[in-house]
Amino acid sequence: MSAAKLCFSKQGFHSTSMKHICQTCNLSPGTLYHHFPSKETLIQAIIFEAQKRALVRLNGPLNGISIIDYLIESTQSLADEDSDERALVVEIMAEGMRNPQVAEMLKKKYMIIAASIIERFNDAQENNEMKKTVNKEIAARLLMALAYGIMSDSQSQEYVRHEDYPATLRSILVGIL
Amino acid sequence: MSAAKLCFSKQGFHSTSMKHICQTCNLSPGTLYHHFPSKETLIQAIIFEAQKRALVRLNGPLNGISIIDYLIESTQSLADEDSDERALVVEIMAEGMRNPQVAEMLKKKYMIIAASIIERFNDAQENNEMKKTVNKEIAARLLMALAYGIMSDSQSQEYVRHEDYPATLRSILVGIL
Repeated sequence: MSAAKLCFSKQGFHSTSMKHICQTCNLSPGTLYHHFPSKETLIQAIIFEAQKRALVRLNGPLNGISIIDYLIESTQSLADEDSDERALVVEIMAEGMRNPQVAEMLKKKYMIIAASIIERFNDAQENNEMKKTVNKEIAARLLMALAYGIMSDSQSQEYVRHEDYPATLRSILVGIL
Repeated sequence: MSAAKLCFSKQGFHSTSMKHICQTCNLSPGTLYHHFPSKETLIQAIIFEAQKRALVRLNGPLNGISIIDYLIESTQSLADEDSDERALVVEIMAEGMRNPQVAEMLKKKYMIIAASIIERFNDAQENNEMKKTVNKEIAARLLMALAYGIMSDSQSQEYVRHEDYPATLRSILVGIL
């Protein structure tokens, strides 16, 4: 996995062959193919890893933190993630626009992450922090778009750490709550 | 330019050589190098093109349309853009996380687009559609993050055309206005 991530980051998907990956991690082709029969299965594994990282942030119940503070902190921590990891997630998104197999993997990832956000919305509605009329599916997708936009901007650390950032994001989130 | 875009889309930046681009567009290396002395100058030209497309949408004064309707329509039209063009923009964002030269080009692009959004905010403030207390720079960056997030999601057409999308985005935007 780390060899594949290294190769994909350095050379992109198209110019990385299974042979390159074998050479980078000193595995025989037989062993690599046993675990990952194709480049697409490696991309799938990288997508699962990114999904797991996202869900760690989203899966906890709110436990007394307001959903707004929770989302402010989550978006700030996104901008602090390792830039090579972020670049790989963004490159996979670009690949999803051209490769229907990768598009399908991303579709599943987004549905699972959206389901977690909707659970947090349900918590917020139980705490009377969120109105009942909002379309939670679309609100979740828009929050995800915002998060992926922050993650894919190499300058986002500059503004998410600005003293006015929490108030600005808060004013955006208040509208859907 | 179109040869370079085709090569970058198909093979990614890393595996596209200037020689490949020459072969694709039947230009002699001398002619190509005369216009574009390096791959980075080609990326810069592609970034300028994307910037121009963004500014067409943002540069017009509001002319009686509320800023909210304007932004709803702009984000919807983003999801309708050609998916190869979108993929290339997203791939350049990934490249910007690894390549400081590309990061610098994107930084300039984002500053120029943010300046246009801030002008639209100024119009909105003159029309008393927007409060005076919001940090317009950060609000502009968050709207851009949202827009790039929508653009980089291969499924975004599904939700931006949903009948609840305008109301959901409206409720987000109302918060900063």
